[in-house]
Amino acid sequence: MNADTTPLPRRDFIRTLSAALPAFSALAAQAQQPAAKPSAHDMSAMPATWTGSEVIVMLLYPQFTALDLLGPQYFLASLMGAKVLLVAKDAAPVACDTGVKMLPDITFEQCPEKIDLLCVPGGSSGTLAAMQDDATLRFVREKGGSARIAASVCTGSLLLGAAGLLQGRKATSHWLVKDLLPRFGATPAEDRVVEDGRVITAAGVTAGLDLGLHLTLKWRDRLYAECMALLAEYAPAPPVQAGDPARSPAQAVEMMRAMLAGFHQKVSDAYPAAR
Amino acid sequence: MNADTTPLPRRDFIRTLSAALPAFSALAAQAQQPAAKPSAHDMSAMPATWTGSEVIVMLLYPQFTALDLLGPQYFLASLMGAKVLLVAKDAAPVACDTGVKMLPDITFEQCPEKIDLLCVPGGSSGTLAAMQDDATLRFVREKGGSARIAASVCTGSLLLGAAGLLQGRKATSHWLVKDLLPRFGATPAEDRVVEDGRVITAAGVTAGLDLGLHLTLKWRDRLYAECMALLAEYAPAPPVQAGDPARSPAQAVEMMRAMLAGFHQKVSDAYPAAR
Repeated sequence: MNADTTPLPRRDFIRTLSAALPAFSALAAQAQQPAAKPSAHDMSAMPATWTGSEVIVMLLYPQFTALDLLGPQYFLASLMGAKVLLVAKDAAPVACDTGVKMLPDITFEQCPEKIDLLCVPGGSSGTLAAMQDDATLRFVREKGGSARIAASVCTGSLLLGAAGLLQGRKATSHWLVKDLLPRFGATPAEDRVVEDGRVITAAGVTAGLDLGLHLTLKWRDRLYAECMALLAEYAPAPPVQAGDPARSPAQAVEMMRAMLAGFHQKVSDAYPAAR
Repeated sequence: MNADTTPLPRRDFIRTLSAALPAFSALAAQAQQPAAKPSAHDMSAMPATWTGSEVIVMLLYPQFTALDLLGPQYFLASLMGAKVLLVAKDAAPVACDTGVKMLPDITFEQCPEKIDLLCVPGGSSGTLAAMQDDATLRFVREKGGSARIAASVCTGSLLLGAAGLLQGRKATSHWLVKDLLPRFGATPAEDRVVEDGRVITAAGVTAGLDLGLHLTLKWRDRLYAECMALLAEYAPAPPVQAGDPARSPAQAVEMMRAMLAGFHQKVSDAYPAAR
C-alpha cells in the first residue's frame, strides 16, 4: 500500500466503490445486509485519489458507431465521483450506424460550461455529415476546446480535426483514414491511444476500450485500472488475429480498403491538402 | 480463393457488402458515384456463403451492461443478410447499468416466432431481477429454447441458466460468478467463448466481442471474420494487463471479489445447490 493511501474499513470501501461504480451500484446495499457474509480477511484500503469529480461529456450524432462510444463509456462511468453525460443536438433518440437508438442525457444547450472531457465517437458517412454540420462543429470546437481533455475514438478524430482541435498535434484514427490526419494539421502517430497535450485520440472502434483504461490510469491509478480491467474481464482471445492491418491477410486488408474508398475520397475532397 | 467462391465485379462486391454492413451502408451509394475513383486493381470476389438470412434477437432488460450487448452487436449487425432486433418487455427506453438509455426495436409480443439467435447480456442486480421476473424468464425460456442458438455474455449465462437452458451443458460466465454455474446444471469451462451444442456462452463483458467474431466465423467464414476484425481494428493494447484473474495482481482480484460478494451471495441464496 502506498504512503498516500487512506485505509478504509472493508464495508466503507465496498459502499463507496459500489455507489460510484454504476455497474454495481445495487451491490452497495446488498453488501451491507446480513446476507452478504464478509470474506475472511479485511483486505481493502482505498487511496484518497480514487475519487474525483470529473464532468465527462460524450457526443451522440446520427450514424455514429455505438461501440466507439460504449467501449470507453463502460470505464468512464465507473470512475468514482465522475459524471458521464451523453449529449446530442436535440433531445430526440439518436440512431447509431448499426441501428441502435440511444437517448441523450442533455442537448448542446444544456451542456455544463466547464467540462473535463469531451469524447467523440467515429462512424463513416455520419461522421462526415457531423463534420459539415455547423451546430455540431461549433459545439465540438467550443467544448472540445475548453475541456480539460478532448478525446476521440476511430474516425471521431476527423471530427476533432474539422473543429480545428488537432492543429500541430500527434494523433491517430481508424487505420483506413489515418493518412488523412495531415489535412487537419495533425501528424499521424503509431500508438493505439495517442496523447499529445490535452488531446487524446484512439485508433479504430475497439481502441475505445483502451482509451477508457488509459483515462482510468491517468485520472485514478494503476490498481484502479487493474480492477476495471478485471471487472471487464479484458483479456481478449479473438478467434481470428486480424485486427492490425500490418499483420492481417492482404486480401482482407484490400477488401476493407475498397469498401472504405468512397468515404476516404469524400473526406479527401472535402478537406483538400494544405498548400 | 476457395473453389466455392463466386467472383463478383468490384462494384457489385462493394454495393452488396456495403448495403449489408450497416456501419457503411451509406458508402454503397458513394462507391457508385464518379467521385469515388476505383482502386487500380479489381481484387474482389465474394463467396456466396457470405450472405445469410439470420434473425438475431438481443435482449434488453433494466440495468443490463451495455457493453455486453454492443460488443457482439457490432459484429452481428454486419452479417450480410442478417437482421438484428433489440427486444424488451415493452416499448419504453431501457436504462443500462452505466446509465445509457436504449430503445428496443420490438417487444416480447412482437418477437418473430422463428429466430436464429437469442443473445442475453449480463449485469448484476438487474440480471438477478430479470432472472426472477416471470415474463422475462418465460421469454428467455421460449425463445432461447427454440432459437437455433442461445447465447450469453457475462452474467447473462445465469439468466440462461435460470431459464433452464444450461442443463447438462458446458458454459462460462463472468469469472466472479462462474462457480455458480453448477446451480443451473452447467459445467464451468475454461474458454473465453464456450460452445456446447446450441448454447454459446461468453465470459465477462469484453468477451462479447470475441462472441461476435465467433459467430461471424461460424455463420460466415474466416475471411469475413478477418474483415470484421480489421474494421473493428481489434488488436487490443490495454495499458494494464489485468483482465485475466489468473494473471492479475492479487489485490485487484480480492477487491473485485469483495465488491461482488453481495451479488454472488444473493444468487447463491436464490438458487441453492441441487441436492
